[in-house]
Amino acid sequence: MKVLITGGAGFLGQRLARELLARGQIKGPNGQPETITELVLLDVVRATGFDGDARVRAEVGDIADRAVLERVIDTQTQTIFHLAAVVSGQAEADFELGMRINLDASRELLETCRLLGHKPRVVFTSSVAVYGGALPAVVQNDTALNPQSSYGMQKAVAELLLNDYARRGFVDGRVLRLPTISVRPGKPNAAASSFASGIIREPLNGETSVCPVAGSTRLWLLSPRKAIECLIAGCELDAAALGLQRVVNLPGLSVSVDEMLDALREVAGEAVVARVEWQADPRVEKIVGSWPGQWDTTRARQLGLTGDASFADVIRSYLEDERISVR
Amino acid sequence: MKVLITGGAGFLGQRLARELLARGQIKGPNGQPETITELVLLDVVRATGFDGDARVRAEVGDIADRAVLERVIDTQTQTIFHLAAVVSGQAEADFELGMRINLDASRELLETCRLLGHKPRVVFTSSVAVYGGALPAVVQNDTALNPQSSYGMQKAVAELLLNDYARRGFVDGRVLRLPTISVRPGKPNAAASSFASGIIREPLNGETSVCPVAGSTRLWLLSPRKAIECLIAGCELDAAALGLQRVVNLPGLSVSVDEMLDALREVAGEAVVARVEWQADPRVEKIVGSWPGQWDTTRARQLGLTGDASFADVIRSYLEDERISVR
Repeated sequence: MKVLITGGAGFLGQRLARELLARGQIKGPNGQPETITELVLLDVVRATGFDGDARVRAEVGDIADRAVLERVIDTQTQTIFHLAAVVSGQAEADFELGMRINLDASRELLETCRLLGHKPRVVFTSSVAVYGGALPAVVQNDTALNPQSSYGMQKAVAELLLNDYARRGFVDGRVLRLPTISVRPGKPNAAASSFASGIIREPLNGETSVCPVAGSTRLWLLSPRKAIECLIAGCELDAAALGLQRVVNLPGLSVSVDEMLDALREVAGEAVVARVEWQADPRVEKIVGSWPGQWDTTRARQLGLTGDASFADVIRSYLEDERISVR
Repeated sequence: MKVLITGGAGFLGQRLARELLARGQIKGPNGQPETITELVLLDVVRATGFDGDARVRAEVGDIADRAVLERVIDTQTQTIFHLAAVVSGQAEADFELGMRINLDASRELLETCRLLGHKPRVVFTSSVAVYGGALPAVVQNDTALNPQSSYGMQKAVAELLLNDYARRGFVDGRVLRLPTISVRPGKPNAAASSFASGIIREPLNGETSVCPVAGSTRLWLLSPRKAIECLIAGCELDAAALGLQRVVNLPGLSVSVDEMLDALREVAGEAVVARVEWQADPRVEKIVGSWPGQWDTTRARQLGLTGDASFADVIRSYLEDERISVR
């Protein structure tokens, strides 16, 4: 089987690629494991770190350009993970860029598949940011989408598109709504939720980190490790089990920022927690405050998708994955 | 004030134009009545019947063509009613056409306004078809959109776009979700709901009409007369009263097909009702059956938007408006 990952040089794309290559196979549409013969990683920069692996083909190009998509998708491309996106803060700052990458590219990808006619499996990632406004304490499957950011709007539109393309039989689509991913390794990015990793990652690295929201702010989190597991499991789900509703809210942990720091204290001690500084940023508070702190995960559980057990476990898996020892 | 109606040669567009010209003015953004100095009617065919009125400018063009939109929208265009659409049955039969007219054109219109930068009032019409799947008996304002047709998906996407363009201050947008309009004059069209007018109109005209759904099928209806009143009142609403949520479900009547025919019997007698023939059409039943039979109208009422009192009244207003006497 030939697999494509868009955003293949990004954080989740790289981890997904490594996991798929380690497994060597993925279940096909009939539920039987199939060998991954080619893994195409498309991104605006070349995906690195896979040089020794003959299965990997790193492609550089603009995801919103139909010609680029036609170069990386053919009738042999049976599975597509579409992870490429402009993050929330950037889509709010640059409206045209967000529309082009988060909306137009998603549509071009679906169109490319429709016109090829081979009905591949297409996995989109979506986000907590599709929700907003006056939300119930626990968001239900039938709670209306009400994005309060252009990023959230673009993700909501991509969901609607994919659902209709799936209903019409153009693709075998799945949308996996991700909680905020924490702890991400690396550097802060332009996502409004960047701090949700920064307040754990930087202190563990001996650096200070600024928390731009109140300690009582409730987040809905998923570790990178569980996110990758859910992406693959979500892709492998039987199409019949999904029916006409192709969107699945992945299971998260509902934790306040204070509870995150309690977990950091438990794992790494008070001296590490003391590296967090507080400085409210109304722009971030407004965007993050509009997201749900928890959603109902009954459907995900019924489909066999599982999340993290505790945020202390999330921190421990971060330390393990990144080979960091607590000082 | 300069006003644009897209779909200006269509049924609702023509009626809206006549009503606006009769009133001669419309409230401006500050709540004060302003004289309508120019009324541009854009459609794929030339709007007729306004030849004597110097205020009317009938334009012919492709609504999805940016150059056409730039010809009919300038910084003096303070109010836009965007009614142009491909109906549900047609959007299902011709996917590309539906995407182009119902989605791309709506976006091009918003983009044209954003780039002009004058923040006009933009009124979009949407539809019951944005809902679907397992619905509560009465759809609430926070019930999730779950379109089961490409038409419904395209309308839902246009809603999300307009809401975000309004949030960002690019336009002063309003989405008015219309119940199924009945009784439409004229001929059957490709809408899945075409029968909701046909089973009243044709029998009153001495002709037989085929009802493709069961008598127990519940519809959510609004008369053309009230629809036009709501479009203008919705346009004139104070932006502050709408806040960030720019979508309003217009008030409808929840009636079954059997109840519609009871009303027809009341107004026109048994001999007229006897002209309805029954022949189930699974394609129509599937689409229409996915729509809500009723939605909560609290918000519309609070905003001062009102619907019809009874379906018998709807039939009587049809007879009056179309100058038909019951035989």
